[in-house]
Amino acid sequence: MDDAGGEPEGAAGVGRIEAFSDGVIAIIVTIMVLELHPPVEKGIAQLVTLWPVFLAYVLSYAYVAIYWVNHHRLFSHAAQVSNGLLWSNMLLLFALSLVPFSTSYLGEQHFSREAVWVYLATMLLPALAYTWLQSVIKATGKQSRVAQEYYAASARKGMAANLIYTAGFPLSLASPWLGISCAVIVAVLWFFPRSRIDQLFARLG
Amino acid sequence: MDDAGGEPEGAAGVGRIEAFSDGVIAIIVTIMVLELHPPVEKGIAQLVTLWPVFLAYVLSYAYVAIYWVNHHRLFSHAAQVSNGLLWSNMLLLFALSLVPFSTSYLGEQHFSREAVWVYLATMLLPALAYTWLQSVIKATGKQSRVAQEYYAASARKGMAANLIYTAGFPLSLASPWLGISCAVIVAVLWFFPRSRIDQLFARLG
Amino acid sequence: MDDAGGEPEGAAGVGRIEAFSDGVIAIIVTIMVLELHPPVEKGIAQLVTLWPVFLAYVLSYAYVAIYWVNHHRLFSHAAQVSNGLLWSNMLLLFALSLVPFSTSYLGEQHFSREAVWVYLATMLLPALAYTWLQSVIKATGKQSRVAQEYYAASARKGMAANLIYTAGFPLSLASPWLGISCAVIVAVLWFFPRSRIDQLFARLG
Amino acid sequence: MDDAGGEPEGAAGVGRIEAFSDGVIAIIVTIMVLELHPPVEKGIAQLVTLWPVFLAYVLSYAYVAIYWVNHHRLFSHAAQVSNGLLWSNMLLLFALSLVPFSTSYLGEQHFSREAVWVYLATMLLPALAYTWLQSVIKATGKQSRVAQEYYAASARKGMAANLIYTAGFPLSLASPWLGISCAVIVAVLWFFPRSRIDQLFARLG
Repeated sequence: MDDAGGEPEGAAGVGRIEAFSDGVIAIIVTIMVLELHPPVEKGIAQLVTLWPVFLAYVLSYAYVAIYWVNHHRLFSHAAQVSNGLLWSNMLLLFALSLVPFSTSYLGEQHFSREAVWVYLATMLLPALAYTWLQSVIKATGKQSRVAQEYYAASARKGMAANLIYTAGFPLSLASPWLGISCAVIVAVLWFFPRSRIDQLFARLG
Repeated sequence: MDDAGGEPEGAAGVGRIEAFSDGVIAIIVTIMVLELHPPVEKGIAQLVTLWPVFLAYVLSYAYVAIYWVNHHRLFSHAAQVSNGLLWSNMLLLFALSLVPFSTSYLGEQHFSREAVWVYLATMLLPALAYTWLQSVIKATGKQSRVAQEYYAASARKGMAANLIYTAGFPLSLASPWLGISCAVIVAVLWFFPRSRIDQLFARLG
Repeated sequence: MDDAGGEPEGAAGVGRIEAFSDGVIAIIVTIMVLELHPPVEKGIAQLVTLWPVFLAYVLSYAYVAIYWVNHHRLFSHAAQVSNGLLWSNMLLLFALSLVPFSTSYLGEQHFSREAVWVYLATMLLPALAYTWLQSVIKATGKQSRVAQEYYAASARKGMAANLIYTAGFPLSLASPWLGISCAVIVAVLWFFPRSRIDQLFARLG
Repeated sequence: MDDAGGEPEGAAGVGRIEAFSDGVIAIIVTIMVLELHPPVEKGIAQLVTLWPVFLAYVLSYAYVAIYWVNHHRLFSHAAQVSNGLLWSNMLLLFALSLVPFSTSYLGEQHFSREAVWVYLATMLLPALAYTWLQSVIKATGKQSRVAQEYYAASARKGMAANLIYTAGFPLSLASPWLGISCAVIVAVLWFFPRSRIDQLFARLG
């Protein structure tokens, strides 16, 4: 890291970081299925009891997949490797690596209040790391008009996600499902391009 | 995802999706072996009792490997990244990620009827996602004559696979092995190029 | 696979097969460490009891690493994708994917005779698949003089490996450690370039 | 490996080794999270008891991430594939693959003296392999002035890391936390570019 400031790397270095991130995300998304232990006893009834674990898996798979898609889009604007890029990205990957843990906990605890808190924490931490990564790429990445519009829209959505996740913590006191709804709302917000919610935030931001 | 419609990405974007898919498929195909727990007791007899788990592993390995080969071929015709491509592919990967679960269940339940149903479901779900992916690439991919012939042949085979898997569910009522045979038939159908079965479907389709 | 005969793919297709193989081999070599369960009780004495599991891990790591190096070298001579290349390579990866299982068995059974047989079987199966892959690349790959010399030397070594592994089965009847020695001899044979053993085989072959 | 001396491979070969290393490191860094087993019982108190396992995970994630960053930097100076490059790199990956084991042991044994020794051993072994890899790349890699300054600074830091890890063993006799501090100091030393510690070593070296 000695010379990271003095000798920034270009597209090749960015490409290797992307490839490494893809590897880590691919593993995260796939090892979660190892928590889906098939029942030892026979019968459909035994299978049906797995629904909370399965639901948690579906939610987390969608969540990590959406991250991959957005990470992919964000990195297409990166122009050089800096310490900020390296470490904000590593923090994001670390935060995402906690998702299999919180997913497993959510499923096994049948969406209990504590499990929802842990789950929301592992949604909020990657969102904060992503906010940092966005600001690094905004500062050091491509500066075309399209890129700048992308940075603005992306920062608005990121801020909204951070707020909604944070709101999930007190809302879980009323009902754990309200907390989970916050995670679902953010997923929907990031999934659908140019949604009404997005336009609402554009007017507010 | 904001600008996915207005600013479609070309070959570079397709390449990154392929690489990510390869990573996920490589992990799926490899972690299945973690379900092959060696027996704690000594002796060949103990090893032999593992045969259903081993057979299920062989079947699923072949199944996922055939998917990789066909995914590879299909993606060679893709020309641009769209939301349809991204999400049909993500759904396919999700569906394939359930295979280690159903494989483990199939092996541990010694090919019971319920386990065969779950297994067939994790064959049918990827097949449906693949059908969606095929239609996306047919609509947005390369339009050369070779590509179009490939789309037609591939769609025929995909439709046949969907039908055979579906037929497996009632057939399992007669015998679970009939249900498993359906999975084997589809594998053979996709494995052998220009087989008689393929030609039969070409005449019917 | 419909058009694999009529429309062989070039370097790009070979590259994707290599990348997929690297992914699978990287996962195989790494998940073996998951079998190294740390002891629950305190104390160095408890750790020391892990030696057979650790020794089996070291042996298998070296074994898979040597495969990766040789696979890398062999593929540098491949020129086109054929069904033979795809499926001999998939069989090789399948065979290698059994190594974590046999390694775990070898370690847990403290190098018992049965475990050595299973281990040798998971050495012999990849060696046979590699022999098939070698013959495919010899027939369809580059035909320069350097390549042809490589094919000849590589085939000789492969044949020697197959013979030594096979000899390990009866030798294990005398002592399991004799069987394991066969695996070690092959590793040494492939590890050291232009060794005396290699020259001996060159004269015999 | 027959012709590794006579026919060294260039940038393409180096690229494949980098990609393979990235794959292995991505898996190592991610499978460690599988040791973070969520508690079966309900309640925040149960979660809090996981702190040593979590702390060990954070430490090891940072450790492996720092290795990836430095491996990336070091390999950008590599110019050709040699047996030395291949095997020093394989030894490094092997040594890093033991980190999930020692991390799990450290967490489960609540940072006991024996666990700290094992952990320091899995810090020292990769550091020694990295020293070998550095000397191989120094001898066979790029020879520009920037590269040579990098080799010198990197070798100084590597030597310092080896010494500090070694010092950790006797220091653990006084307190296991002193031993862990050695691991943390090395991480800080490699993390911050051009730190005062680095300048101190530059004057001493």
